[in-house]
Amino acid sequence: DDVGASVKNMSDPYGNEPRRHIALKPSSKKPFNAEPPLALLVDSLITPNELFYVRNHLPVPEVDASTYELEVCDEELQKEKVFTLKDLKKYPKHTVTATIMCAGNRRSEMTQVKPVKGLSWGQAAIGNATWSGARLCDVLRDLGITDGKTDALHIQFEGLDTDPAHMPYGASIPIEKALDPHGDVILAYEMNGEPIPRDHGYPIRVIVPGVVGARNVKWLGRIVVSKDESDSHWQQNDYKGFAPSVDWDTVDFKKSPAIQELPVISAICEPLEGQTVGVKNGKVNVKGYAWSGGGRKIVRVDVSSDGGKNWQAADVLECDGARHPQAWGWSIWKAEIPVPKSKLEAQLCAKAVDSQYNTQPENFENIWNLRGVLANAYHRVNIKLAR
Amino acid sequence: DDVGASVKNMSDPYGNEPRRHIALKPSSKKPFNAEPPLALLVDSLITPNELFYVRNHLPVPEVDASTYELEVCDEELQKEKVFTLKDLKKYPKHTVTATIMCAGNRRSEMTQVKPVKGLSWGQAAIGNATWSGARLCDVLRDLGITDGKTDALHIQFEGLDTDPAHMPYGASIPIEKALDPHGDVILAYEMNGEPIPRDHGYPIRVIVPGVVGARNVKWLGRIVVSKDESDSHWQQNDYKGFAPSVDWDTVDFKKSPAIQELPVISAICEPLEGQTVGVKNGKVNVKGYAWSGGGRKIVRVDVSSDGGKNWQAADVLECDGARHPQAWGWSIWKAEIPVPKSKLEAQLCAKAVDSQYNTQPENFENIWNLRGVLANAYHRVNIKLAR
Ligand SMILES: [Mo]
Ligand SMILES: [Mo]
Repeated sequence: DDVGASVKNMSDPYGNEPRRHIALKPSSKKPFNAEPPLALLVDSLITPNELFYVRNHLPVPEVDASTYELEVCDEELQKEKVFTLKDLKKYPKHTVTATIMCAGNRRSEMTQVKPVKGLSWGQAAIGNATWSGARLCDVLRDLGITDGKTDALHIQFEGLDTDPAHMPYGASIPIEKALDPHGDVILAYEMNGEPIPRDHGYPIRVIVPGVVGARNVKWLGRIVVSKDESDSHWQQNDYKGFAPSVDWDTVDFKKSPAIQELPVISAICEPLEGQTVGVKNGKVNVKGYAWSGGGRKIVRVDVSSDGGKNWQAADVLECDGARHPQAWGWSIWKAEIPVPKSKLEAQLCAKAVDSQYNTQPENFENIWNLRGVLANAYHRVNIKLAR
Repeated sequence: DDVGASVKNMSDPYGNEPRRHIALKPSSKKPFNAEPPLALLVDSLITPNELFYVRNHLPVPEVDASTYELEVCDEELQKEKVFTLKDLKKYPKHTVTATIMCAGNRRSEMTQVKPVKGLSWGQAAIGNATWSGARLCDVLRDLGITDGKTDALHIQFEGLDTDPAHMPYGASIPIEKALDPHGDVILAYEMNGEPIPRDHGYPIRVIVPGVVGARNVKWLGRIVVSKDESDSHWQQNDYKGFAPSVDWDTVDFKKSPAIQELPVISAICEPLEGQTVGVKNGKVNVKGYAWSGGGRKIVRVDVSSDGGKNWQAADVLECDGARHPQAWGWSIWKAEIPVPKSKLEAQLCAKAVDSQYNTQPENFENIWNLRGVLANAYHRVNIKLAR
């Protein structure tokens, strides 16, 4: 029976997945994709590992840290170097607090305008953690790759997770981001002070602060310094934005750039849609998160209780002390907001402003895109008022 | 009489202003503020010097290049160095193409929602030029100020233009921008290959690519490396964004950060509001500019001819080859867009998407602010159709 179970296990690529926290709500089980409940999400500035959303494209690989190897090669120089985990830990340990968000976060709202293809994410496909590891620019320097001394334009990443045809997950980032000493790209072996959990890339995940989750490749197996972007499906034919008029018959994926840095976004996490909320002194309490990619800091969150007619700035905006353009982490905000008198219902809205003074689009209609990515319109939550 | 004229001249601080191109339309004469006609603005990717919008806060100073001196000092190190124009020209000549925009560009549209305080700018308080000069980081290095080797947080700039109490124009930028070798901040002595014209800062203007015009200080007289921002009126009590609920009775300028990098914006320059436009094969030609601060590149412009119900991407997007995050210049776009059949009027709209996938807010209502800055809502132009 044991043998049978083992054989069955090996024949199912999803037979060796890690245990997950019971609070995570899956949007897909194979591959595993799940997000935490909104109220838990904003309990703390740092998201606990076990509650961090999981976005896997393929089965979780089983990696033995003692035999783990990371290949780093430069296509033009025809140079290659292999690093063990021990080798990577010899580099100065660099720690950054960075929010990672899925390109499809809040897709379930965009879908309501018109159907899109993709997992139905709520507002919690985002998390904020402290990551530690070797700086990618330090590792690349040891291969002779430094700013101004390479013709390469992209850094490609391959995961150790593979599809049935043994093709790995892949993505790339522009070389400017990788070589910028203030870009804070790290080959991370720790998440919130612990070895990175299997679901989040054990033993090494590349952390690309300010950049969409899809480029923060987990179970990192290979780095290629290249003149070209990754040719993976996810870099070339997915994770791109398009005009609302583009549909599956007319889409040309070559016409849009791969998503890298994400735009400004926010969400209301308390109260929840449909909830009955107590009114105190004519006001209700609202709480949520706000974040912007590219190291932009959140400078203001505006909250409305009348569907967006009147706005006031949130009272509390909690974040770490990082400065623009290295403000990689999110902000948790709180507002005590007056609700219309004698009404029994209200529509709450939130919109954030970042340190580049970019703000969110009002509605999903005009940012709708066939893949349902970049869903950063105002978040609207309808509540009932208990007086 | 000659003496009399000269005395009169000297007693009027505006008695010695430069000549201006007849096409520039002033929004204020003393100080001189003016913008070019929209159709001329997008005639070329590079804006000619004489058509570049002028935004002066004070009288244009008369500066003798042969005796010009730039003071550079570090408050903490108590170091000071003086540079002549010849000294500055000894540094490697660095050339960047950068768009400069006034924080109040398009204010006249925001005003229509509710009055704001400020000059009534149309859509042409923006221009794109090639600037050459010494890199600020090279100059600062000669004072021992380099990345990681200073506790300073800001670089303050003072102009040689002064108010009646002899106080100079002033502004500051975060030190990260100044010390970043890819930040491309230059002490410019040339604009489009010519000595910088008097209206644009002769003999030296600091060019801070991707950052609001107000920090690109003209007639630069002094640079201070400091732990503090400039204490000037323009840094502290002006050029900041606020929530729509904030009015002149409740505003606390300490609560918002000084505008630095500007958000994504676009404008339709052809046709003009109210114009009668010929319809060919059911379509009209539309042309405009799009730009984003912070070195973000324009990746798409969407155009609508039905007030924003349907959108299609512009066909042409012309720009220089600079890559994110050093794409300092604007894009000129063109679209041939179908207009609703059998109608005699249409509302054109444009909105841009930048390389961080930020996009513009739909309307001015929710971004309204008492100073009328950051007016980057969709540009809407009502036209008549000739069939
Ligand atoms: Mo994602
Ligand atoms: Mo300005």
